[in-house]
Amino acid sequence: MGAAAAGADATKPAPTMRESLIKAAFQLFLDRGFEQTTIDDIVALAGVGRRSFFRYFPSKEDVVFPDHEGCLVEMTEYLRDAPADGDPVQQVCEAARLVLQMYAADPLFSVQRYRLTREVPGLRAHELSVVWRYELALAEHLRERGAGRADGALRADVVAAAVVAAHNHALRTWLRAGGEGDVQAAMDEALGYVVRAFSDSAGPHGGGGTDGVDGERPDEEVVVLLARKGTPLWRVVRDVEGALGGS
Amino acid sequence: MGAAAAGADATKPAPTMRESLIKAAFQLFLDRGFEQTTIDDIVALAGVGRRSFFRYFPSKEDVVFPDHEGCLVEMTEYLRDAPADGDPVQQVCEAARLVLQMYAADPLFSVQRYRLTREVPGLRAHELSVVWRYELALAEHLRERGAGRADGALRADVVAAAVVAAHNHALRTWLRAGGEGDVQAAMDEALGYVVRAFSDSAGPHGGGGTDGVDGERPDEEVVVLLARKGTPLWRVVRDVEGALGGS
Repeated sequence: MGAAAAGADATKPAPTMRESLIKAAFQLFLDRGFEQTTIDDIVALAGVGRRSFFRYFPSKEDVVFPDHEGCLVEMTEYLRDAPADGDPVQQVCEAARLVLQMYAADPLFSVQRYRLTREVPGLRAHELSVVWRYELALAEHLRERGAGRADGALRADVVAAAVVAAHNHALRTWLRAGGEGDVQAAMDEALGYVVRAFSDSAGPHGGGGTDGVDGERPDEEVVVLLARKGTPLWRVVRDVEGALGGS
Repeated sequence: MGAAAAGADATKPAPTMRESLIKAAFQLFLDRGFEQTTIDDIVALAGVGRRSFFRYFPSKEDVVFPDHEGCLVEMTEYLRDAPADGDPVQQVCEAARLVLQMYAADPLFSVQRYRLTREVPGLRAHELSVVWRYELALAEHLRERGAGRADGALRADVVAAAVVAAHNHALRTWLRAGGEGDVQAAMDEALGYVVRAFSDSAGPHGGGGTDGVDGERPDEEVVVLLARKGTPLWRVVRDVEGALGGS
């Protein structure tokens, strides 16, 4: 945790007081529970004043996720500097990995926090809002880099959500297993799944000709559609959409 | 809103007191702001006792999203009763549409709520947790129905997130436009995008053999479908699914 926190942002205050607050907070959260711990308890154990706490953390919830702000900054910078001719889907996958690196830098702390978050609804809600901000950052990058596409904004939202879901699937599986196992390999698999579904060169299933459906007679009210049994539904839907959507 | 709320769950208490609480709450939220309105203000304006409020709503946040609990129940039932031989991806798309129907049943209320939610961070967080529960319900269905696949759990999480993101993209675009425009068509497009990326018979980008319906397989059955022009795509898809799904 220390390395990740210090590395994330060189302009941060010296890490020692901040780290001692985190350490004290977690000791209390684990000993007596999150709800039962006050900010006064934390600063007393850390041996600092109450105002020092708020210098580092806006709320008690934030001390549970001390490195997310730094990680979000890192992610935003990474995406801003990503090559313009790269695959934006690959780029947001790499950006999501920054979150994994933060967790993997201190497995024990990450597993403790995961268990705590499962138990406290307020922390769960706070985590959802953190995840949402990551998702927004990824979607913004995809929107910017896919600006030429007609479906750019939709695609950006969907791909960002898929990347976050895949990332969190691999991460949570590892955390549930107590931090055991090869999380990098699981992450490769999870993000690889999304890349195959959405990666750059083509839209989903690549587009291609509409050969599946007969019909579209401009002046008639009824469209006749012919499809062989066993045709994948997505293909029929694509063609039906073309036939019904117009006029 | 009334119709949607009453229709969602027949076991709910009579809607009149509940609805007058919602109406009073929104009037106050819009007049003086969410944070500045207390539960006491709401019950005073609605002319009911404080305990009545809590009979209907666990918190002040919940009165802003009065129909989500009913919608979640409806969604869960819809998915539970979905045909075992249907396409689970299509099924979760249809389930997501129940949320749209709830919003579309009362556009004015939905737009007001959307604006309120944008302004109040606490409501935004509450909405994220509601969305998260929808996403969990969809993922659970996909996990159950895709149980045979090696990547079932990953796929379930990713597809559920993609469906929710697509749904919310169409819904938010419509809400931002003040409830103007054809939200059903936008939803067709958004969910169609996810279906094409993930739908059943094939993994992403299909890979697999079914190469359109014009292939040389003279012994296969041909399905003829009739649909009036202008039929909503989702309705056609539902019927197509039944006709093609068997084989």
